[in-house]
Amino acid sequence: MCQLLGMNANTPTDVMFSFTGLATRADEHKDGFGIAFFEDRGLRHFIDRDGAIGSPVAQMIKRYPIKSEVVIAHIRKATVGSVALQNCHPFVRELWGRYWVFAHNGDLKDYHPRLHGQFRPVGDTDSERAFCWLMQELAKAHADVPSVDELSCTLRELLPQPARHGTFNVLLSNGQALWAHGTTKLWSVERAHPFTAATLADEDLSVDFAAHTTPQDRVAVVATEPLTTNETWVPFEPGELRVFQGGVRHGRCG
Amino acid sequence: MCQLLGMNANTPTDVMFSFTGLATRADEHKDGFGIAFFEDRGLRHFIDRDGAIGSPVAQMIKRYPIKSEVVIAHIRKATVGSVALQNCHPFVRELWGRYWVFAHNGDLKDYHPRLHGQFRPVGDTDSERAFCWLMQELAKAHADVPSVDELSCTLRELLPQPARHGTFNVLLSNGQALWAHGTTKLWSVERAHPFTAATLADEDLSVDFAAHTTPQDRVAVVATEPLTTNETWVPFEPGELRVFQGGVRHGRCG
Repeated sequence: MCQLLGMNANTPTDVMFSFTGLATRADEHKDGFGIAFFEDRGLRHFIDRDGAIGSPVAQMIKRYPIKSEVVIAHIRKATVGSVALQNCHPFVRELWGRYWVFAHNGDLKDYHPRLHGQFRPVGDTDSERAFCWLMQELAKAHADVPSVDELSCTLRELLPQPARHGTFNVLLSNGQALWAHGTTKLWSVERAHPFTAATLADEDLSVDFAAHTTPQDRVAVVATEPLTTNETWVPFEPGELRVFQGGVRHGRCG
Repeated sequence: MCQLLGMNANTPTDVMFSFTGLATRADEHKDGFGIAFFEDRGLRHFIDRDGAIGSPVAQMIKRYPIKSEVVIAHIRKATVGSVALQNCHPFVRELWGRYWVFAHNGDLKDYHPRLHGQFRPVGDTDSERAFCWLMQELAKAHADVPSVDELSCTLRELLPQPARHGTFNVLLSNGQALWAHGTTKLWSVERAHPFTAATLADEDLSVDFAAHTTPQDRVAVVATEPLTTNETWVPFEPGELRVFQGGVRHGRCG
Protein backbone atom coordinates (compact mmCIF):
# COMPACT_ATOMS: atom_id res chain seq x y z
CA MET A 1 0.00 0.00 0.00
CA CYS A 2 1.24 3.47 -0.81
CA GLN A 3 1.96 5.96 1.93
CA LEU A 4 0.78 9.56 1.85
CA LEU A 5 2.11 12.53 3.80
CA GLY A 6 0.74 16.05 3.71
CA MET A 7 1.78 19.09 5.72
CA ASN A 8 0.29 22.56 5.96
CA ALA A 9 1.68 25.31 8.20
CA ASN A 10 1.20 29.01 8.78
CA THR A 11 4.95 29.61 8.59
CA PRO A 12 7.51 27.84 6.40
CA THR A 13 8.26 24.55 8.14
CA ASP A 14 10.47 21.62 7.25
CA VAL A 15 9.18 18.03 7.14
CA MET A 16 12.46 16.23 7.81
CA PHE A 17 11.03 14.58 10.94
CA SER A 18 7.83 13.37 9.29
CA PHE A 19 9.57 12.37 6.06
CA THR A 20 12.03 10.25 8.06
CA GLY A 21 9.04 8.50 9.64
CA LEU A 22 7.47 7.94 6.24
CA ALA A 23 10.70 6.71 4.60
CA THR A 24 11.34 4.25 7.41
CA ARG A 25 8.00 2.67 6.72
CA ALA A 26 8.99 2.29 3.09
CA ASP A 27 11.12 -0.86 3.09
CA GLU A 28 8.43 -2.69 1.17
CA HIS A 29 7.74 0.30 -1.06
CA LYS A 30 10.62 0.14 -3.49
CA ASP A 31 8.65 1.41 -6.45
CA GLY A 32 9.41 5.09 -6.29
CA PHE A 33 8.66 8.09 -4.17
CA GLY A 34 7.96 11.74 -4.62
CA ILE A 35 7.64 14.93 -2.63
CA ALA A 36 6.54 18.43 -3.57
CA PHE A 37 7.21 21.60 -1.58
CA PHE A 38 5.36 24.84 -2.23
CA GLU A 39 7.31 28.02 -1.67
CA ASP A 40 4.98 30.96 -2.30
CA ARG A 41 3.58 30.16 -5.78
CA GLY A 42 6.71 28.22 -6.72
CA LEU A 43 7.16 24.49 -6.40
CA ARG A 44 10.01 22.10 -5.76
CA HIS A 45 9.07 18.68 -7.10
CA PHE A 46 11.27 15.63 -6.49
CA ILE A 47 10.45 12.17 -7.77
CA ASP A 48 12.51 9.02 -8.09
CA ARG A 49 11.89 5.52 -9.35
CA ASP A 50 14.15 4.25 -6.58
CA GLY A 51 12.70 3.66 -3.14
CA ALA A 52 12.77 6.34 -0.48
CA ILE A 53 15.55 4.66 1.49
CA GLY A 54 18.28 4.23 -1.12
CA SER A 55 17.53 7.16 -3.41
CA PRO A 56 20.13 9.98 -3.43
CA VAL A 57 17.22 12.38 -3.87
CA ALA A 58 15.57 11.11 -0.68
CA GLN A 59 18.89 11.28 1.14
CA MET A 60 19.26 14.92 0.12
CA ILE A 61 15.73 15.75 1.28
CA LYS A 62 16.37 14.15 4.67
CA ARG A 63 19.46 16.32 5.13
CA TYR A 64 18.39 19.59 3.49
CA PRO A 65 15.78 21.46 5.56
CA ILE A 66 13.51 22.74 2.79
CA LYS A 67 10.97 24.98 4.51
CA SER A 68 7.53 25.12 3.01
CA GLU A 69 3.94 26.00 3.84
CA VAL A 70 2.46 23.02 1.99
CA VAL A 71 4.13 19.67 1.36
CA ILE A 72 2.74 16.55 -0.33
CA ALA A 73 4.75 13.31 -0.30
CA HIS A 74 4.04 9.83 -1.61
CA ILE A 75 5.83 6.50 -1.38
CA ARG A 76 4.68 4.14 -4.07
CA LYS A 77 3.87 0.45 -4.17
CA ALA A 78 3.03 -0.16 -7.82
CA THR A 79 -0.36 -1.75 -8.40
CA VAL A 80 -1.51 -0.22 -11.69
CA GLY A 81 1.09 1.14 -14.13
CA SER A 82 4.72 0.15 -14.55
CA VAL A 83 7.58 1.34 -12.32
CA ALA A 84 8.43 4.34 -14.48
CA LEU A 85 9.21 7.93 -13.61
CA GLN A 86 6.03 9.15 -15.34
CA ASN A 87 3.99 7.05 -12.88
CA CYS A 88 5.54 8.50 -9.71
CA HIS A 89 3.33 10.68 -7.50
CA PRO A 90 2.83 13.48 -6.77
CA PHE A 91 1.67 14.72 -10.17
CA VAL A 92 1.74 18.40 -11.13
CA ARG A 93 -0.35 20.52 -13.47
CA GLU A 94 -0.89 24.27 -13.87
CA LEU A 95 -4.36 25.82 -13.70
CA TRP A 96 -5.28 29.51 -13.40
CA GLY A 97 -1.61 30.44 -12.99
CA ARG A 98 -1.10 28.13 -10.00
CA TYR A 99 0.64 24.79 -9.77
CA TRP A 100 -1.58 21.97 -8.53
CA VAL A 101 -0.11 18.90 -6.85
CA PHE A 102 -1.91 15.57 -6.37
CA ALA A 103 -1.07 12.26 -4.70
CA HIS A 104 -3.31 9.21 -4.30
CA ASN A 105 -3.38 6.07 -2.21
CA GLY A 106 -5.63 3.27 -3.45
CA ASP A 107 -6.87 1.56 -6.60
CA LEU A 108 -9.66 2.67 -8.91
CA LYS A 109 -11.24 -0.24 -10.78
CA ASP A 110 -12.45 0.25 -14.36
CA TYR A 111 -11.89 3.96 -14.07
CA HIS A 112 -11.76 5.64 -17.48
CA PRO A 113 -13.24 9.13 -17.12
CA ARG A 114 -13.93 11.15 -20.24
CA LEU A 115 -10.91 13.46 -20.65
CA HIS A 116 -12.06 15.92 -23.27
CA GLY A 117 -10.31 18.96 -21.80
CA GLN A 118 -6.82 20.31 -21.59
CA PHE A 119 -5.37 17.82 -19.07
CA ARG A 120 -4.03 14.50 -20.31
CA PRO A 121 -2.16 11.78 -18.39
CA VAL A 122 1.52 11.37 -19.24
CA GLY A 123 1.85 7.98 -17.51
CA ASP A 124 -0.62 5.13 -17.25
CA THR A 125 -1.90 5.16 -13.67
CA ASP A 126 -5.52 5.37 -12.56
CA SER A 127 -4.30 8.09 -10.16
CA GLU A 128 -3.11 10.47 -12.87
CA ARG A 129 -6.35 9.89 -14.79
CA ALA A 130 -8.30 10.91 -11.68
CA PHE A 131 -6.11 14.01 -11.24
CA CYS A 132 -6.58 15.07 -14.88
CA TRP A 133 -10.33 14.59 -14.54
CA LEU A 134 -10.41 16.67 -11.32
CA MET A 135 -8.44 19.47 -12.99
CA GLN A 136 -10.70 19.37 -16.06
CA GLU A 137 -13.83 19.59 -13.91
CA LEU A 138 -12.39 22.39 -11.73
CA ALA A 139 -11.55 24.33 -14.90
CA LYS A 140 -15.12 23.88 -16.14
CA ALA A 141 -16.69 24.78 -12.79
CA HIS A 142 -14.97 28.16 -12.37
CA ALA A 143 -14.28 30.77 -15.01
CA ASP A 144 -11.42 32.25 -13.02
CA VAL A 145 -9.53 31.67 -9.79
CA PRO A 146 -12.09 30.82 -7.09
CA SER A 147 -11.59 31.27 -3.36
CA VAL A 148 -10.41 28.36 -1.22
CA ASP A 149 -13.97 27.99 0.09
CA GLU A 150 -15.42 27.83 -3.41
CA LEU A 151 -12.79 25.27 -4.43
CA SER A 152 -13.59 23.19 -1.37
CA CYS A 153 -17.29 23.12 -2.19
CA THR A 154 -16.58 22.10 -5.81
CA LEU A 155 -14.15 19.41 -4.67
CA ARG A 156 -16.70 18.05 -2.20
CA GLU A 157 -18.96 17.43 -5.19
CA LEU A 158 -16.23 16.01 -7.44
CA LEU A 159 -14.19 13.75 -5.15
CA PRO A 160 -16.94 11.16 -4.51
CA GLN A 161 -17.12 10.37 -8.25
CA PRO A 162 -13.71 8.68 -8.68
CA ALA A 163 -14.19 7.27 -5.17
CA ARG A 164 -17.08 5.15 -6.49
CA HIS A 165 -14.45 3.11 -8.35
CA GLY A 166 -12.39 2.13 -5.33
CA THR A 167 -10.11 3.46 -2.65
CA PHE A 168 -9.48 7.17 -3.06
CA ASN A 169 -7.34 8.60 -0.27
CA VAL A 170 -6.06 11.81 -1.80
CA LEU A 171 -3.94 14.88 -1.09
CA LEU A 172 -4.31 17.96 -3.29
CA SER A 173 -2.87 21.47 -3.06
CA ASN A 174 -2.40 24.63 -5.08
CA GLY A 175 -0.15 26.18 -2.44
CA GLN A 176 -3.00 28.11 -0.80
CA ALA A 177 -4.55 25.19 1.05
CA LEU A 178 -4.19 21.44 1.52
CA TRP A 179 -7.23 19.34 0.62
CA ALA A 180 -7.29 15.82 2.06
CA HIS A 181 -9.95 13.26 1.15
CA GLY A 182 -10.11 9.88 2.88
CA THR A 183 -12.12 6.83 1.97
CA THR A 184 -10.32 4.13 3.97
CA LYS A 185 -7.10 5.15 5.70
CA LEU A 186 -6.20 8.74 6.41
CA TRP A 187 -5.40 10.53 9.65
CA SER A 188 -4.53 14.09 10.59
CA VAL A 189 -3.03 15.86 13.56
CA GLU A 190 -2.86 19.57 14.36
CA ARG A 191 0.05 20.97 16.30
CA ALA A 192 -0.21 24.27 18.16
CA HIS A 193 1.16 26.03 21.21
CA PRO A 194 2.10 24.60 23.71
CA PHE A 195 4.25 22.36 21.55
CA THR A 196 5.60 19.15 23.07
CA ALA A 197 8.00 16.39 22.10
CA ALA A 198 6.76 13.84 19.54
CA THR A 199 8.07 10.32 19.05
CA LEU A 200 8.07 8.58 15.69
CA ALA A 201 6.04 5.37 15.60
CA ASP A 202 8.54 3.41 13.50
CA GLU A 203 11.93 4.77 14.39
CA ASP A 204 13.71 5.46 17.64
CA LEU A 205 13.58 9.20 17.08
CA SER A 206 11.82 12.06 18.76
CA VAL A 207 11.78 15.79 18.24
CA ASP A 208 10.94 18.55 20.67
CA PHE A 209 8.76 20.85 18.59
CA ALA A 210 8.83 23.46 21.38
CA ALA A 211 12.51 24.06 20.63
CA HIS A 212 11.83 24.70 16.94
CA THR A 213 8.65 26.78 17.04
CA THR A 214 7.15 30.01 18.22
CA PRO A 215 3.81 30.23 20.07
CA GLN A 216 2.11 31.49 16.90
CA ASP A 217 3.09 28.48 14.76
CA ARG A 218 0.36 26.15 13.57
CA VAL A 219 1.07 22.93 11.70
CA ALA A 220 -1.27 20.26 10.38
CA VAL A 221 -0.01 16.85 9.21
CA VAL A 222 -2.03 14.27 7.26
CA ALA A 223 -0.81 10.70 6.78
CA THR A 224 -1.98 7.23 5.82
CA GLU A 225 -1.29 6.10 9.37
CA PRO A 226 -0.35 8.06 12.51
CA LEU A 227 3.36 8.86 12.33
CA THR A 228 3.84 9.56 16.04
CA THR A 229 2.82 7.62 19.14
CA ASN A 230 2.10 10.44 21.59
CA GLU A 231 -0.11 12.86 19.64
CA THR A 232 -3.83 12.92 18.95
CA TRP A 233 -4.31 11.71 15.39
CA VAL A 234 -7.90 11.88 14.18
CA PRO A 235 -9.05 9.31 11.58
CA PHE A 236 -11.06 10.46 8.55
CA GLU A 237 -14.63 9.25 8.20
CA PRO A 238 -15.19 7.37 4.90
CA GLY A 239 -15.58 10.05 2.22
CA GLU A 240 -14.56 12.91 4.50
CA LEU A 241 -12.89 16.00 3.04
CA ARG A 242 -10.69 18.14 5.29
CA VAL A 243 -9.26 21.47 4.20
CA PHE A 244 -6.23 22.95 5.94
CA GLN A 245 -5.12 26.54 5.60
CA GLY A 246 -2.53 28.27 7.77
CA GLY A 247 -2.03 25.01 9.66
CA VAL A 248 -5.66 24.66 10.82
CA ARG A 249 -8.93 23.10 9.64
CA HIS A 250 -10.77 25.58 7.51
CA GLY A 251 -13.98 26.41 5.80
CA ARG A 252 -17.59 25.38 5.49
CA CYS A 253 -17.08 22.73 2.81
CA GLY A 254 -14.12 21.03 4.46
CA MET B 1 23.50 36.91 -18.53
CA CYS B 2 21.83 33.57 -17.99
CA GLN B 3 23.48 30.37 -19.11
CA LEU B 4 21.69 27.66 -21.05
CA LEU B 5 22.65 24.01 -21.44
CA GLY B 6 20.82 21.43 -23.53
CA MET B 7 21.71 17.81 -24.22
CA ASN B 8 20.17 15.23 -26.53
CA ALA B 9 21.49 11.69 -26.93
CA ASN B 10 20.43 8.43 -28.54
CA THR B 11 21.14 6.53 -25.33
CA PRO B 12 20.64 7.69 -21.72
CA THR B 13 23.64 9.87 -20.93
CA ASP B 14 24.63 11.86 -17.88
CA VAL B 15 25.53 15.55 -18.03
CA MET B 16 27.76 15.73 -14.95
CA PHE B 17 30.72 16.93 -17.04
CA SER B 18 28.80 19.65 -18.87
CA PHE B 19 26.87 20.70 -15.77
CA THR B 20 30.13 21.13 -13.89
CA GLY B 21 31.31 23.40 -16.68
CA LEU B 22 28.10 25.38 -16.55
CA ALA B 23 28.05 25.66 -12.74
CA THR B 24 31.65 26.87 -12.66
CA ARG B 25 30.68 29.71 -14.91
CA ALA B 26 27.94 30.62 -12.47
CA ASP B 27 29.75 32.61 -9.76
CA GLU B 28 28.00 35.76 -10.89
CA HIS B 29 24.69 33.94 -11.37
CA LYS B 30 23.46 33.64 -7.83
CA ASP B 31 19.80 34.04 -8.68
CA GLY B 32 18.77 30.44 -9.02
CA PHE B 33 19.26 27.52 -11.32
CA GLY B 34 17.27 24.64 -12.69
CA ILE B 35 17.70 21.43 -14.61
CA ALA B 36 15.22 19.00 -16.12
CA PHE B 37 15.94 15.40 -17.16
CA PHE B 38 13.60 13.41 -19.37
CA GLU B 39 13.45 9.69 -18.70
CA ASP B 40 11.10 8.15 -21.27
CA ARG B 41 7.95 10.29 -20.86
CA GLY B 42 8.78 11.04 -17.22
CA LEU B 43 10.62 14.11 -15.99
CA ARG B 44 12.91 14.98 -13.13
CA HIS B 45 12.77 18.72 -12.53
CA PHE B 46 15.10 20.42 -10.06
CA ILE B 47 15.06 24.14 -9.36
CA ASP B 48 16.58 26.22 -6.61
CA ARG B 49 16.64 29.90 -5.73
CA ASP B 50 20.21 29.44 -4.55
CA GLY B 51 23.02 29.61 -7.07
CA ALA B 52 24.35 26.52 -8.77
CA ILE B 53 27.52 26.44 -6.70
CA GLY B 54 26.21 26.46 -3.14
CA SER B 55 22.86 24.74 -3.63
CA PRO B 56 22.55 21.26 -2.06
CA VAL B 57 20.39 20.34 -5.06
CA ALA B 58 23.20 21.27 -7.46
CA GLN B 59 25.69 19.37 -5.33
CA MET B 60 23.51 16.26 -5.55
CA ILE B 61 23.19 16.59 -9.32
CA LYS B 62 26.97 16.89 -9.71
CA ARG B 63 27.44 13.65 -7.74
CA TYR B 64 24.43 11.59 -8.88
CA PRO B 65 24.77 10.41 -12.50
CA ILE B 66 21.19 10.85 -13.70
CA LYS B 67 21.09 9.39 -17.20
CA SER B 68 18.72 10.98 -19.66
CA GLU B 69 18.05 11.35 -23.36
CA VAL B 70 17.14 15.03 -23.12
CA VAL B 71 18.36 17.54 -20.53
CA ILE B 72 17.68 21.27 -20.27
CA ALA B 73 19.51 23.37 -17.67
CA HIS B 74 19.49 27.07 -16.85
CA ILE B 75 21.49 29.27 -14.53
CA ARG B 76 19.71 32.50 -13.84
CA LYS B 77 20.77 36.11 -13.57
CA ALA B 78 17.57 37.93 -12.66
CA THR B 79 16.68 40.79 -14.98
CA VAL B 80 12.87 40.71 -15.04
CA GLY B 81 10.99 39.15 -12.14
CA SER B 82 12.05 38.74 -8.54
CA VAL B 83 14.38 36.03 -7.24
CA ALA B 84 11.59 33.60 -6.39
CA LEU B 85 11.21 29.88 -6.98
CA GLN B 86 8.31 30.45 -9.38
CA ASN B 87 10.67 32.48 -11.62
CA CYS B 88 13.35 29.77 -11.93
CA HIS B 89 13.79 28.13 -15.32
CA PRO B 90 13.23 25.63 -16.79
CA PHE B 91 9.43 25.86 -16.76
CA VAL B 92 7.21 22.81 -17.26
CA ARG B 93 3.73 22.33 -18.70
CA GLU B 94 1.78 19.32 -19.97
CA LEU B 95 0.33 19.23 -23.50
CA TRP B 96 -1.08 16.21 -25.40
CA GLY B 97 0.00 13.87 -22.58
CA ARG B 98 3.65 14.96 -22.74
CA TYR B 99 5.64 17.21 -20.43
CA TRP B 100 7.16 20.23 -22.15
CA VAL B 101 10.24 21.97 -20.75
CA PHE B 102 11.39 25.49 -21.65
CA ALA B 103 14.38 27.66 -20.72
CA HIS B 104 15.22 31.12 -22.06
CA ASN B 105 18.23 33.40 -22.16
CA GLY B 106 17.57 37.05 -22.92
CA ASP B 107 15.10 39.85 -22.27
CA LEU B 108 11.84 40.54 -24.08
CA LYS B 109 10.83 44.21 -23.96
CA ASP B 110 7.16 45.17 -23.69
CA TYR B 111 6.17 41.59 -24.29
CA HIS B 112 2.58 40.95 -23.24
CA PRO B 113 1.12 38.32 -25.58
CA ARG B 114 -2.59 37.59 -25.44
CA LEU B 115 -2.94 34.50 -23.22
CA HIS B 116 -6.51 33.42 -23.82
CA GLY B 117 -5.86 29.68 -23.67
CA GLN B 118 -5.18 27.11 -21.05
CA PHE B 119 -1.60 28.10 -20.15
CA ARG B 120 -1.03 30.86 -17.59
CA PRO B 121 2.22 32.05 -16.02
CA VAL B 122 2.72 31.24 -12.34
CA GLY B 123 5.62 33.66 -11.87
CA ASP B 124 6.23 37.08 -13.40
CA THR B 125 8.98 36.61 -15.99
CA ASP B 126 8.81 37.50 -19.66
CA SER B 127 10.24 34.00 -20.27
CA GLU B 128 7.30 32.15 -18.74
CA ARG B 129 4.90 34.40 -20.68
CA ALA B 130 6.66 33.42 -23.90
CA PHE B 131 6.50 29.73 -22.96
CA CYS B 132 2.77 29.92 -22.17
CA TRP B 133 2.16 31.69 -25.47
CA LEU B 134 4.16 29.04 -27.39
CA MET B 135 2.20 26.23 -25.72
CA GLN B 136 -1.08 28.00 -26.43
CA GLU B 137 -0.21 28.42 -30.10
CA LEU B 138 1.04 24.83 -30.45
CA ALA B 139 -2.23 23.60 -28.93
CA LYS B 140 -4.18 25.69 -31.44
CA ALA B 141 -2.05 24.61 -34.41
CA HIS B 142 -2.48 20.87 -33.95
CA ALA B 143 -5.61 18.97 -32.95
CA ASP B 144 -3.59 16.05 -31.63
CA VAL B 145 0.03 14.99 -31.14
CA PRO B 146 1.97 16.02 -34.24
CA SER B 147 5.21 14.48 -35.45
CA VAL B 148 8.54 16.04 -34.52
CA ASP B 149 8.79 17.39 -38.08
CA GLU B 150 5.37 19.01 -37.89
CA LEU B 151 6.23 20.52 -34.49
CA SER B 152 9.48 21.89 -35.90
CA CYS B 153 7.69 23.58 -38.79
CA THR B 154 5.12 25.15 -36.44
CA LEU B 155 7.86 26.30 -34.08
CA ARG B 156 9.79 27.85 -36.95
CA GLU B 157 6.74 30.04 -37.56
CA LEU B 158 6.12 30.83 -33.89
CA LEU B 159 9.58 31.47 -32.44
CA PRO B 160 10.33 34.67 -34.44
CA GLN B 161 7.29 36.39 -32.89
CA PRO B 162 8.56 36.69 -29.29
CA ALA B 163 12.03 37.22 -30.76
CA ARG B 164 10.84 40.55 -32.21
CA HIS B 165 10.75 41.85 -28.62
CA GLY B 166 14.38 41.13 -27.80
CA THR B 167 16.90 38.38 -27.20
CA PHE B 168 15.29 34.97 -27.45
CA ASN B 169 17.83 32.17 -27.08
CA VAL B 170 15.63 29.23 -26.16
CA LEU B 171 15.70 25.52 -25.39
CA LEU B 172 12.49 23.49 -25.62
CA SER B 173 11.78 19.76 -25.36
CA ASN B 174 8.92 17.29 -24.95
CA GLY B 175 11.31 14.37 -24.44
CA GLN B 176 11.17 13.34 -28.11
CA ALA B 177 13.45 16.04 -29.47
CA LEU B 178 15.41 19.11 -28.37
CA TRP B 179 14.53 22.36 -30.13
CA ALA B 180 17.13 25.13 -29.85
CA HIS B 181 16.53 28.65 -31.15
CA GLY B 182 19.29 31.25 -31.11
CA THR B 183 19.08 34.99 -31.71
CA THR B 184 22.39 36.17 -30.24
CA LYS B 185 24.45 33.58 -28.37
CA LEU B 186 23.96 29.86 -28.81
CA TRP B 187 26.36 27.12 -29.89
CA SER B 188 26.08 23.40 -30.44
CA VAL B 189 28.44 20.48 -30.77
CA GLU B 190 27.76 16.92 -31.92
CA ARG B 191 29.76 14.05 -30.50
CA ALA B 192 30.07 10.74 -32.34
CA HIS B 193 32.47 7.88 -32.82
CA PRO B 194 35.48 8.12 -32.65
CA PHE B 195 35.08 9.87 -29.30
CA THR B 196 38.01 11.80 -27.91
CA ALA B 197 38.91 13.58 -24.70
CA ALA B 198 37.30 16.96 -24.09
CA THR B 199 38.59 19.72 -21.84
CA LEU B 200 36.31 22.13 -20.01
CA ALA B 201 36.86 25.76 -20.92
CA ASP B 202 36.48 27.10 -17.38
CA GLU B 203 37.77 24.38 -15.11
CA ASP B 204 40.85 22.24 -15.04
CA LEU B 205 38.87 19.13 -15.89
CA SER B 206 38.76 16.82 -18.86
CA VAL B 207 36.86 13.66 -19.66
CA ASP B 208 37.71 10.90 -22.10
CA PHE B 209 34.37 10.23 -23.77
CA ALA B 210 35.84 7.16 -25.51
CA ALA B 211 36.02 5.43 -22.13
CA HIS B 212 32.36 6.07 -21.40
CA THR B 213 30.71 5.42 -24.76
CA THR B 214 30.05 2.82 -27.41
CA PRO B 215 30.63 3.42 -31.15
CA GLN B 216 26.87 3.79 -31.68
CA ASP B 217 26.44 6.63 -29.16
CA ARG B 218 25.49 10.06 -30.47
CA VAL B 219 25.29 13.12 -28.25
CA ALA B 220 24.48 16.74 -29.08
CA VAL B 221 25.12 19.58 -26.62
CA VAL B 222 23.81 23.13 -26.93
CA ALA B 223 25.11 25.96 -24.74
CA THR B 224 25.25 29.74 -24.48
CA GLU B 225 29.00 29.56 -25.02
CA PRO B 226 31.26 26.64 -25.97
CA LEU B 227 31.90 24.56 -22.85
CA THR B 228 35.01 22.80 -24.12
CA THR B 229 38.17 24.10 -25.77
CA ASN B 230 39.03 21.24 -28.12
CA GLU B 231 35.76 20.45 -29.90
CA THR B 232 34.04 21.99 -32.90
CA TRP B 233 31.26 24.19 -31.55
CA VAL B 234 29.07 25.71 -34.25
CA PRO B 235 27.45 29.10 -33.56
CA PHE B 236 23.77 29.65 -34.38
CA GLU B 237 22.89 32.18 -37.07
CA PRO B 238 20.55 34.92 -35.75
CA GLY B 239 17.05 33.39 -35.70
CA GLU B 240 18.25 29.86 -36.45
CA LEU B 241 16.28 26.85 -35.21
CA ARG B 242 18.08 23.53 -34.73
CA VAL B 243 16.26 20.31 -33.91
CA PHE B 244 18.11 17.40 -32.34
CA GLN B 245 16.78 13.88 -32.16
CA GLY B 246 18.76 10.78 -31.22
CA GLY B 247 21.82 12.98 -30.69
CA VAL B 248 21.92 14.39 -34.25
CA ARG B 249 20.53 17.34 -36.23
CA HIS B 250 17.17 16.38 -37.60
CA GLY B 251 14.44 17.30 -40.00
CA ARG B 252 13.49 19.68 -42.75
CA CYS B 253 12.30 22.55 -40.53
CA GLY B 254 15.26 22.48 -38.17
